[in-house]
Amino acid sequence: MASPLPHVADSALGDAAAALLGDRRLIIATNRGPVTFTVGSSGVPRPRRGSGGLVTALGQVGRHVPVTWVAAAMSEGDRRAAEDPKLLREASGDDSVRLRFASVERSVYEQAYNVIANPFLWFLQHQMWNLPERPIIDASVMRAWERGYVPLNEAFARAVLNQARGDREPRVMLHDYHLYCAAEPIRRARPKAVISHFTHIPWPPSSIWQTIAPPIREGIATGLLANDVVGFQTQRYAHNFLRMVESFVPRAEVDYEGWSVRWRRRTTHVRSYPISIDVEATRRVATSRAARRRADQLLGGTRERVLVRVDRLEPSKNILRGFLAYEALLVRHPRLRGHISFLAFLVPSRTGLKEYGDYGRSVQNAVDRTNARFGRAGWRPIQIFYENDYAQALAGLSIADVVLVNPLVDGMNLVAKEAVVVSERDAVLVLSETAGAYDQMADGAIAVAPADVVGTADALADALAMDPDERRRRLARLRRGVEREDITWWLRRQLEDLATLAT
Amino acid sequence: MASPLPHVADSALGDAAAALLGDRRLIIATNRGPVTFTVGSSGVPRPRRGSGGLVTALGQVGRHVPVTWVAAAMSEGDRRAAEDPKLLREASGDDSVRLRFASVERSVYEQAYNVIANPFLWFLQHQMWNLPERPIIDASVMRAWERGYVPLNEAFARAVLNQARGDREPRVMLHDYHLYCAAEPIRRARPKAVISHFTHIPWPPSSIWQTIAPPIREGIATGLLANDVVGFQTQRYAHNFLRMVESFVPRAEVDYEGWSVRWRRRTTHVRSYPISIDVEATRRVATSRAARRRADQLLGGTRERVLVRVDRLEPSKNILRGFLAYEALLVRHPRLRGHISFLAFLVPSRTGLKEYGDYGRSVQNAVDRTNARFGRAGWRPIQIFYENDYAQALAGLSIADVVLVNPLVDGMNLVAKEAVVVSERDAVLVLSETAGAYDQMADGAIAVAPADVVGTADALADALAMDPDERRRRLARLRRGVEREDITWWLRRQLEDLATLAT
Repeated sequence: MASPLPHVADSALGDAAAALLGDRRLIIATNRGPVTFTVGSSGVPRPRRGSGGLVTALGQVGRHVPVTWVAAAMSEGDRRAAEDPKLLREASGDDSVRLRFASVERSVYEQAYNVIANPFLWFLQHQMWNLPERPIIDASVMRAWERGYVPLNEAFARAVLNQARGDREPRVMLHDYHLYCAAEPIRRARPKAVISHFTHIPWPPSSIWQTIAPPIREGIATGLLANDVVGFQTQRYAHNFLRMVESFVPRAEVDYEGWSVRWRRRTTHVRSYPISIDVEATRRVATSRAARRRADQLLGGTRERVLVRVDRLEPSKNILRGFLAYEALLVRHPRLRGHISFLAFLVPSRTGLKEYGDYGRSVQNAVDRTNARFGRAGWRPIQIFYENDYAQALAGLSIADVVLVNPLVDGMNLVAKEAVVVSERDAVLVLSETAGAYDQMADGAIAVAPADVVGTADALADALAMDPDERRRRLARLRRGVEREDITWWLRRQLEDLATLAT
Repeated sequence: MASPLPHVADSALGDAAAALLGDRRLIIATNRGPVTFTVGSSGVPRPRRGSGGLVTALGQVGRHVPVTWVAAAMSEGDRRAAEDPKLLREASGDDSVRLRFASVERSVYEQAYNVIANPFLWFLQHQMWNLPERPIIDASVMRAWERGYVPLNEAFARAVLNQARGDREPRVMLHDYHLYCAAEPIRRARPKAVISHFTHIPWPPSSIWQTIAPPIREGIATGLLANDVVGFQTQRYAHNFLRMVESFVPRAEVDYEGWSVRWRRRTTHVRSYPISIDVEATRRVATSRAARRRADQLLGGTRERVLVRVDRLEPSKNILRGFLAYEALLVRHPRLRGHISFLAFLVPSRTGLKEYGDYGRSVQNAVDRTNARFGRAGWRPIQIFYENDYAQALAGLSIADVVLVNPLVDGMNLVAKEAVVVSERDAVLVLSETAGAYDQMADGAIAVAPADVVGTADALADALAMDPDERRRRLARLRRGVEREDITWWLRRQLEDLATLAT
């Protein structure tokens, strides 16, 4: 992978890594890896770079630390590559990131991924259920937990232990909601391993966990307690985890002041590590010639004021109420009509799930209604860009006067951080209090409560009316924050904590 | 109203009342009062007894304490009676409970009741929303808050103050989610008033409040802080309120250990008072000749084992999953088929609301499916009784082997308490952990997580298989608990706390 770039923070990160690792490799485990294999017409699996925020964030790690990265074999190509050291070696490149697969039968994986992780845990942790109707934890869900999710986690543990042969104290970082139960089997085989788990998505309050089957919620809580450090995006989520442990793990001693849990003669530290972006890499894409050209094109198609949002098309992103708020803005501020453009860059997501399809249609209807109600020759109030084009999205953010980030709930939300880094027009950030990012960005953003359409319309009006000095000051403050607390900072703090707390 | 019954706890209650009240009357305020007026063909408003759990519970108060009860004028008859002292006096009877109305224009009341209290706060506090879609806090909701809910609360305050003329320190108990903002205007006029508010429904975690408009959630939090004591059904709800105050009321000092809040140089105590039933009155109805006859009839139509539930037909009661669990029980325990009857006493509720209608149809479909799948000549697996017949419901509970109380979330749930008091067959109680009642009844009930259909089916099987000694022991324990912590205990603790904490 790319060679390390010189960077002020690098030496601190290198020191932290050295203190933790010695001459070991860091073992990272995630569901989706940096490379997936597809079997083309040739019959030979061929590697393709993965995408997604987590892969992008962790892709940085290999620049600083020798890494072995264990991912789930998601495709047939992955499963074949899993058995083929040569293919894996070729795909890994210069050995700074060594690629491995945790492989289970396709049907097992499907149950873990398509019954438990995505429709169940994702919806649960984003509180996206209409509880009187869903979830229904019936025999098929319990079977998918017992014969899908748990075995997949055990396969991850085996793959990790395979990489830790001869090492009684391997260093392992597990990631996200696919791997809540992987630490326990690793811990059983290597009691002195140093293991962390980081949850990228929100951790809801106990009243949500309380609705679901005890074997699942207790499996998750005790599974995580096998780690030395359990990390979350925000202190609120970390607190919710402590309360969950207190509610559902008998005899666990929860120390709220010390942010730790004592259970079965081990201590688990519970911490928050707000994730961030690679500031340099983001700027590189945003200032690329292609992105600049796209920004100019976009600007050519807009009116004086530009409002931008960038989101996966996903119910938790609250896109619908964003458009309702914009409609309310045009109702209450007639002078804006014809003088503002709302560019919405919406990335297709989970298009196979019914909820997502239904949600997409509701969004489209709201857009059509507003465009029909207020649009006129030469002015379309809302323009939708429905594609996965990262450079274009950054180009859009760079020309925004106002960026709307109003999720219902969001582990972190990196768009908010990208926006302040790439802005060229002192964009004002309108940000949900319920986004993890809000905890770091409250002092520069305008806060909104996500269900509050009236309040969001007011916030947009305030943002558009803000005087230039104030805009500049706020953006500068937010930008300094993101530059200081970037992706390297996120990683370094975890490595430092693992070194000091767990060894 | 009824004259006081001799009762062990009465003297303690009388002492508490005397300590708090001196020679004052206790002023109680609730949305729905003990009497409503309807205008019949004669044109003269005629009183009718109210119903509902809250009215029944508070109806007890007048037996022990002289009460002035302020209720909302809900009907045209109420509004006319509000102006007619003679009518009010007649309806009040012997003056132990003096009836008064808080009266606002019909349109104001409609906004408070049909836009804010019932569809908004009730759904919010029971976490019954599909958040990606609802609520949408638009201009009409904000208007209903400002021009409906707040003015109704001010009208309550005026009605209370009218009853407190010449008294600088009136004693006022406000109730439930219709009256979160009534204490503040009372406090302004009578800084030394002793005021409490009790919330009968759940208090959700801050992440739920965080989604809604700041003026509403802050209005509720600061409105409640004008009370001396803010009461909830459980400690969990009380804790959630403390966290809400910390999240949304700047400069409020929250003392989690001391269960209090210091704000604007006043202290508000936050307590839990689990509500209960009038044990004697419940027994009286259950053992009435009519109820006994009905119990015999019901028993004649059942097989060996009898499973019973009693609920308003209401999505938060989780009736649908209850039937799915029963279906799973019949699937997994074929020997039960033909030998068990599930009697479901479902009380019509809010039939005008679309969500309730949709939910009712889903329930009916599930019942029809199970009856069609397993029923045979002479055996219907599920029998529905869709009517409001309290004596019949108690008769049903009295003959149950197993009582299923599995709400998604419930402030308290009095059916669980009624069931253990009236049982004649040592019923086993299967109870949601998410019902407020669970906090008092965990040591006798079998716990279920409400979304866990598999676990609920297992719990029903365990309950049916439980040996007679164990059933008897558990029921006796639960019954002693309810007898000890009855409605008088609920009231006495509040009066005592008001006397010691607030005066």
